[in-house]
Amino acid sequence: MNNYEIWQIGTVFSELQNLHDCPLQNIEHAPKAYLHIDYSLHEALKGAKPGMKIVILTWLDKADRNTLVVHPRGDKRNPLTGVFLTRSPNRPNPVGLHETTISDIDKHGVIEVEGLEVLNGTPIIDIKISLFGK
Amino acid sequence: MNNYEIWQIGTVFSELQNLHDCPLQNIEHAPKAYLHIDYSLHEALKGAKPGMKIVILTWLDKADRNTLVVHPRGDKRNPLTGVFLTRSPNRPNPVGLHETTISDIDKHGVIEVEGLEVLNGTPIIDIKISLFGK
Repeated sequence: MNNYEIWQIGTVFSELQNLHDCPLQNIEHAPKAYLHIDYSLHEALKGAKPGMKIVILTWLDKADRNTLVVHPRGDKRNPLTGVFLTRSPNRPNPVGLHETTISDIDKHGVIEVEGLEVLNGTPIIDIKISLFGK
Repeated sequence: MNNYEIWQIGTVFSELQNLHDCPLQNIEHAPKAYLHIDYSLHEALKGAKPGMKIVILTWLDKADRNTLVVHPRGDKRNPLTGVFLTRSPNRPNPVGLHETTISDIDKHGVIEVEGLEVLNGTPIIDIKISLFGK
């Protein structure tokens, strides 16, 4: 098994300041957010337009990388389940996976997105176009 | 901007031996594949069952991390586009994102999945339950 170096490419700016502010599983009531992408990578945003559906990968740096089983949704009535069959942030590689829509992009390369359930300051590691609808 | 260490959690075994064997954008004709997860992490598969839809994150170790723009789908008629608005494997962090379905799981923790367009030997870095249908 190998290790690889993953590079932070940008940062999420959001009004979600701590874990208690976070909606448990995306979408419902998640506020809009701003993606600040490192200046050296702005060319990689060429063609970004409002309305595009994107996938954002984040590095959940507050997560516990040694957790292997959880009660899904933090509810003890749900049986202990391997983290690979959940969306828990706690997992060996705490990569967050989020689908949202670009609502605006300014000339400094700051991307405004619709609902995103990610803490303010969370590192971004990748953005991709979504395969699910446009 | 920070760097993080990502850990290989397993390996894809597939009949796809080189890039020419790979269907361009998933699904069509992708062969089944086997996910070998590191023994120390088997607990993180607790509850895995055939029929579950999962998301697999891979580390595309053959990719070029310095590419910022591409012609989508490798077709020069498509205008140069930032890699963050494509699914190109070439990007700063070459994380592959794949949705598929568990078709079998054996007692050694080897997971057989339906169509997966990933080269044999590709490192796996995460598995999550899919939010799209079950």
